[in-house]
Amino acid sequence: MQHDIVVVGAGVSGLVTADRLTTQGYDVVVLEARDRVGGRTHTVPVPDHPEYRIDVGGQWVGPDQRALLAELDRFGLTTHDQDDGRDALVSLRGSLRRYRGDTPKIGAVALADVGQALWRFDRLCARVDLDAPWATPDAVRLDAQTFETWIRRNLRTSQGRDFFRIGCEAVFATTSANLSLLHALFYSRSGTSFSHLLTTGGGAQHAVVDGGMAQLAEHLAAGLGDRVRLSSPVTAVEHGPGGVVVRTGADVVRARRTVVTVPPALVAGIAFAPPLPPVRDAVQRRMPHGSVIKCHAVYPTPFWREDGLSGEAAGDTGPVKVVFDATPPARSGAGPDDASPPGILVAFIEGADALEAAAWTLEQRKNAVVRVLAGYVGDRALSPTSFNEQDWTAEEWTRGCYGAHLPPGAWTQVGRALREPVGVVHWAGTETATRWCGYIDGAISSGERAAREVAALLPEA
Amino acid sequence: MQHDIVVVGAGVSGLVTADRLTTQGYDVVVLEARDRVGGRTHTVPVPDHPEYRIDVGGQWVGPDQRALLAELDRFGLTTHDQDDGRDALVSLRGSLRRYRGDTPKIGAVALADVGQALWRFDRLCARVDLDAPWATPDAVRLDAQTFETWIRRNLRTSQGRDFFRIGCEAVFATTSANLSLLHALFYSRSGTSFSHLLTTGGGAQHAVVDGGMAQLAEHLAAGLGDRVRLSSPVTAVEHGPGGVVVRTGADVVRARRTVVTVPPALVAGIAFAPPLPPVRDAVQRRMPHGSVIKCHAVYPTPFWREDGLSGEAAGDTGPVKVVFDATPPARSGAGPDDASPPGILVAFIEGADALEAAAWTLEQRKNAVVRVLAGYVGDRALSPTSFNEQDWTAEEWTRGCYGAHLPPGAWTQVGRALREPVGVVHWAGTETATRWCGYIDGAISSGERAAREVAALLPEA
Repeated sequence: MQHDIVVVGAGVSGLVTADRLTTQGYDVVVLEARDRVGGRTHTVPVPDHPEYRIDVGGQWVGPDQRALLAELDRFGLTTHDQDDGRDALVSLRGSLRRYRGDTPKIGAVALADVGQALWRFDRLCARVDLDAPWATPDAVRLDAQTFETWIRRNLRTSQGRDFFRIGCEAVFATTSANLSLLHALFYSRSGTSFSHLLTTGGGAQHAVVDGGMAQLAEHLAAGLGDRVRLSSPVTAVEHGPGGVVVRTGADVVRARRTVVTVPPALVAGIAFAPPLPPVRDAVQRRMPHGSVIKCHAVYPTPFWREDGLSGEAAGDTGPVKVVFDATPPARSGAGPDDASPPGILVAFIEGADALEAAAWTLEQRKNAVVRVLAGYVGDRALSPTSFNEQDWTAEEWTRGCYGAHLPPGAWTQVGRALREPVGVVHWAGTETATRWCGYIDGAISSGERAAREVAALLPEA
Repeated sequence: MQHDIVVVGAGVSGLVTADRLTTQGYDVVVLEARDRVGGRTHTVPVPDHPEYRIDVGGQWVGPDQRALLAELDRFGLTTHDQDDGRDALVSLRGSLRRYRGDTPKIGAVALADVGQALWRFDRLCARVDLDAPWATPDAVRLDAQTFETWIRRNLRTSQGRDFFRIGCEAVFATTSANLSLLHALFYSRSGTSFSHLLTTGGGAQHAVVDGGMAQLAEHLAAGLGDRVRLSSPVTAVEHGPGGVVVRTGADVVRARRTVVTVPPALVAGIAFAPPLPPVRDAVQRRMPHGSVIKCHAVYPTPFWREDGLSGEAAGDTGPVKVVFDATPPARSGAGPDDASPPGILVAFIEGADALEAAAWTLEQRKNAVVRVLAGYVGDRALSPTSFNEQDWTAEEWTRGCYGAHLPPGAWTQVGRALREPVGVVHWAGTETATRWCGYIDGAISSGERAAREVAALLPEA
């Protein structure tokens, strides 16, 4: 039996691809390696408080992420704002300061330095061709240097440089040394601007889905029913003009076309016959992933709020660079026991720190994290009632978050192969998005684009 | 039945690993995906002249490559010098010049520029810690920039910059934009110096094995007999304290330990259970390969010698940057027909050029190559009697040559995982070598190192 389309991966992009094609009447099968849908979005119960849930994967929605907002709306999912109007903290080179609003308190000279650099960076961003970064004016030169080289050349103060470096880790989950400047520019423009990606209220970290982001994938999957086959890791794809034969350990699925939605680096784990063209193979081997261990420390109450602190913090102390409050909102209409949800801080171990910390014991990681938290909100942070962590780089079917990044030379030399179909094999996933690349919004738009691409080539359903 | 060691890959490093362990009495199995041994060394008959052979893969041996020289000696393999004392050619920005010796004729100012830059580069090289590049003084700064950034900063003339850029492509089969400066330094020092890697007589391209380099692997494999299993691509490795279970399509091999000798990027195509640690996975996804299409144009005679030309040429014209004479030596004691071997030029299409040219037809590539050759040695080059090409990036079980390179940030963040065993899983291959990394010599020494490493952990055979 031959289906119309087999979708590889039931993350958000794969589910959206299948959703749009199914709606048009096509016969679709979705193969997912894990025993759950959602990919890099994943929501779990709070330890000891199963009535509340935390996002151990993709979490936030921005006010201008239209594709994601529309999808949340469709399923009646509501959100609450991340920013609560209290004070945030910044710690650089031993100096801890609190501030309100979007502008970290880092001293007037450093702030002026950051301001002029953001302005220069935004001017460069404005030149990027989002559909074809390799066609950006002066692309070869921009792609021949690292983001770190740009930071060293364009910032004069050490605190200003640290601001950009920590911002880079927060956005890319890797250091500025690993990124092509062209990629940093593309990615920032794809999500509006570098500072927009760093912003809470009104920016990329604006709001959180009540009950967790994973509901999005769950709703999409529910609509697809048994078209989604879990625990079905794809090992091989035979492809040709007549269609595709996709093999999992136990299953063989035939279809006219396939949409592969897993991140490019993971496609290297699938045996294609005939082998993929050199330029496609090359792009897959030049898109490593960032590394993130997302840690949640749970406390009886959000005690930091008593001190006027929002729980948002960033700095250069220890393996944690960025912290947010992840306390769930009180459940409306809840009984007396539910009225006060536990206080939760979410701490991100990113980039090289995450790869190093992965070799520690859970106890060592927990201790390192709560020490950083205590430095921000006080010693009560040293004794969480529970601690949860999710190491995305250790996950066999993700191997790193938040997304992939391109090192120097890659966009201009092999970037064109990122979305270009190989015969009946099409590509989706947030890494292929032109708007909000690397974000859930980009996953959705990439699935919609792939569905249009495939539908245009298939006979009408 | 449990063997002592299963070696994955029958390239030079895998065969040397198995050879050394077998000699010590261990029970070894070698699993090779291809239907031949040798990996990136491969020798084929000259089209229409099957009595002569050409190396379509690794070809040269340098006078200081002791591991390789010893191995050639062991099997009685002889060599002939690449340099024949005739004139070489260099073509930069429309100016074609001939010269003799090691110093290309590129104008006095450019030459002085290249000279001072090579001197600076060598001084930086001298600081590199070959065993642990991440421990090199100032490693993080050296690893945070591209080789191209260094070239732009340290060379003043456009011809001087071109010299370094073309040299980079010739050595790494990728552009200077793709390389970490620290990697360029490590790799150069690993093979003595950047200029040594570019040198013919006395340098890395000193001599060619009579009858072809592939004889090395054939001799090693002959000694191993049916321990080498061809057409056995490894798809999965289960590993634990009790040993390994290695699966191919048709076969299951159990052993106490395994030595995986395929390039790190290809390890990503093998499913490990349990999954490899994050830092090991990360290094595998940050070592893309260079890209090479090695082309041989065959002529009735080496006609360029009549003009006093050696056939060696380098320049910026078209998709071919580097050319050498690959005319085989006359066969000693040969009959009258064999007295005059055909004239052969070998032309390399490298880096982004190779990825682009891979999408052309064979006819288009041939025409582009012979046009470049004609620009060097005259119009007789336009009409070869035959044309042979080997696209290493299209090869499913290699996916690029000459070797892997590390983009910025990789050595300092994940480089330590390149050789570090994961339990009973050990790593070899030229990419793990500290001397002549990326060369056949490094493949041999890496196999010897892995064999020592494993033998020290196994009960005596």
